[in-house]
Amino acid sequence: MPKVNDTFDADISALRAQIDDIDHQLLSLLAKRRKVTSQVGALKSEAGVAIFDPAREQALLASLKEKCHSYEVSPELIQDLFKRIMRDSYSSQDEKGYQKVNAKIEKVVVIGGNGQLGSIFVDLFSRSGYQVLSLEEQDWNNADNLLSGANLVIVAVPINVTEQVISKLNGLDKQCILADITSIKSTPMEKMLSVHKGPVVGLHPMFGPGVTGMIKQTVIVCEGRDLFACEWLMQQLQVWGAELKYYSAAEHDETMAMVQVMRHFSTISYGYHLMQEGADLQRLLDMSSPIYRLELAMVGRLFAQDKQLYADIIFSNGNNVAVMKRYAERFLTLLSAVECQDKALFLDTFTQVSDWFGDYAQSFLIESQQLLNKTKES
Amino acid sequence: MPKVNDTFDADISALRAQIDDIDHQLLSLLAKRRKVTSQVGALKSEAGVAIFDPAREQALLASLKEKCHSYEVSPELIQDLFKRIMRDSYSSQDEKGYQKVNAKIEKVVVIGGNGQLGSIFVDLFSRSGYQVLSLEEQDWNNADNLLSGANLVIVAVPINVTEQVISKLNGLDKQCILADITSIKSTPMEKMLSVHKGPVVGLHPMFGPGVTGMIKQTVIVCEGRDLFACEWLMQQLQVWGAELKYYSAAEHDETMAMVQVMRHFSTISYGYHLMQEGADLQRLLDMSSPIYRLELAMVGRLFAQDKQLYADIIFSNGNNVAVMKRYAERFLTLLSAVECQDKALFLDTFTQVSDWFGDYAQSFLIESQQLLNKTKES
Repeated sequence: MPKVNDTFDADISALRAQIDDIDHQLLSLLAKRRKVTSQVGALKSEAGVAIFDPAREQALLASLKEKCHSYEVSPELIQDLFKRIMRDSYSSQDEKGYQKVNAKIEKVVVIGGNGQLGSIFVDLFSRSGYQVLSLEEQDWNNADNLLSGANLVIVAVPINVTEQVISKLNGLDKQCILADITSIKSTPMEKMLSVHKGPVVGLHPMFGPGVTGMIKQTVIVCEGRDLFACEWLMQQLQVWGAELKYYSAAEHDETMAMVQVMRHFSTISYGYHLMQEGADLQRLLDMSSPIYRLELAMVGRLFAQDKQLYADIIFSNGNNVAVMKRYAERFLTLLSAVECQDKALFLDTFTQVSDWFGDYAQSFLIESQQLLNKTKES
Repeated sequence: MPKVNDTFDADISALRAQIDDIDHQLLSLLAKRRKVTSQVGALKSEAGVAIFDPAREQALLASLKEKCHSYEVSPELIQDLFKRIMRDSYSSQDEKGYQKVNAKIEKVVVIGGNGQLGSIFVDLFSRSGYQVLSLEEQDWNNADNLLSGANLVIVAVPINVTEQVISKLNGLDKQCILADITSIKSTPMEKMLSVHKGPVVGLHPMFGPGVTGMIKQTVIVCEGRDLFACEWLMQQLQVWGAELKYYSAAEHDETMAMVQVMRHFSTISYGYHLMQEGADLQRLLDMSSPIYRLELAMVGRLFAQDKQLYADIIFSNGNNVAVMKRYAERFLTLLSAVECQDKALFLDTFTQVSDWFGDYAQSFLIESQQLLNKTKES
């Protein structure tokens, strides 16, 4: 019936033209909005006010949600869109630079400041008006000169050379803060405290390669010596949008062994297993629901990254092996229940763990579901 | 300096008023857009055209991306926003119902049609103009009546009673299609083929509880008997937006053992391990970067779900135990490299797996990174 098709095509085209027109208006409004938020950023930066303002964000989202009914749009859609718009708006505010919290600081040195993580610190310090220098491998013959008069030295080198680098820092001024950003804390902290007699603080920014700034990122802070003298640095991190959590180096490393090391190692083992099984990756993807696709992506992504970094993290702590052995034992114990067809034992264990997770299980379900919904967009 | 603060507050308020005004305009445009896309849906439904139109989606995103430069907005922002808007627009198109692909079908019966997955099928069939009945546990004394004259019977009961339910279906009309939607395929397919002499097809919709429709969801199709007679059903699934992948029952089950069963089981073991280690969940969350938080959520979410379902999947296939034992062996082999401080061996294994993943590793990294960026919005 070509006649029906003609009408259909014409009708669809007319509606699509309307959609295109609406989309242009949306683009131009979004551009206008970004210009305004960037002015907000400039004002905040002048006044030294933190860019991330959770209260304003909450209020804005709540007020939009209220209006959804009268506009006949889905509240879920509006929440998702405006969260994304606000993420963009933070980065627009960020462009204008940040307040310098401590006017007395004359010099910051980042050792390894050209590295992935180090360069983020160099960038943020310089956009906050600090004089900041990088000290790289080839600069050690000029180190005394570079480090002289520094008020803050941050060690941002790969984990396997951290201790060696720290051992060279015995000539810093007494008032200088010595900090590191290694992903393990006990050994670098001990080393820093023995080498330097002034203020010492251990930092672990909990974010990986893809991140470009500090907004909404968690930074673990481990007190070394004279945390009071480090106060301005903590404030500076917060001005950049970081959320600080204070833990001891031991607490930090114990938790990392349980989460980071364990997850890296079992993920690597799983990739190794898939290879040994001769898995067909395309078939695995074909048969993947969003959650398996995501889990597979979480495995595969690791193998696109720096193997030395993962090896260093896994080999960094003798205690890691013991924790992972206990995991393997538990895996095999539970597997023997499956082998013996003891479903009752399996279900009973499941219930125990479920009770142990408590309310977290439900909130994890909701959180991950929201995220999984988005996987269908790409 | 209260004067500076007064100016600051007034300036910020003025800018925020502008933002609020822009946001209202955005809301009203989005509402207008939804009205237009819902008309597109009505037209498509009348004409029997699939709602999901990848080519139009690609073209629209590409044309928007081109315009970003002249509007001075971020292309990443626009891509993310419009993908989300299009997801909403599909659901608006969906509201108007779907085309009935096969006008000759008089009766569809979904056994377990009140269940989570079954009810999605009941809903979609009825919104496509089919007469559709549910047959529940309490209806078996009336089963002959309910099943009489059915052109399609779909078994959508829990995995542990699937075979038992199929065994009761020996009285179906010869021309009736018998289908199931169980997450394992070999045993239910064998059972269906032995009980029923007409067309048989195995389906596995690859989506979990949170999903409400079929748009962009993968459905695995396993041929049983007379796939030609099932053709209209495949078309109907596609009209609903499903993407079909054809595999044999054996290929399906092998892949599931490698992905689904393995991931469920190791996730349950990891939850069990965290409990036995006496982990402090709040501390784990405090020290989680977005990726660890997501991984932790992927573990915890499982324990908010139906334990019987997981047990049934894990216990469903004797072959599962063998696969998981091989995984545990590989885990321990790799762990012994860590224990012996043999970093070279570890790195070598990593490289092998990395090579095996090939280009997938990089694309998984990009895909998961896009998703991880979104976790910072909530």
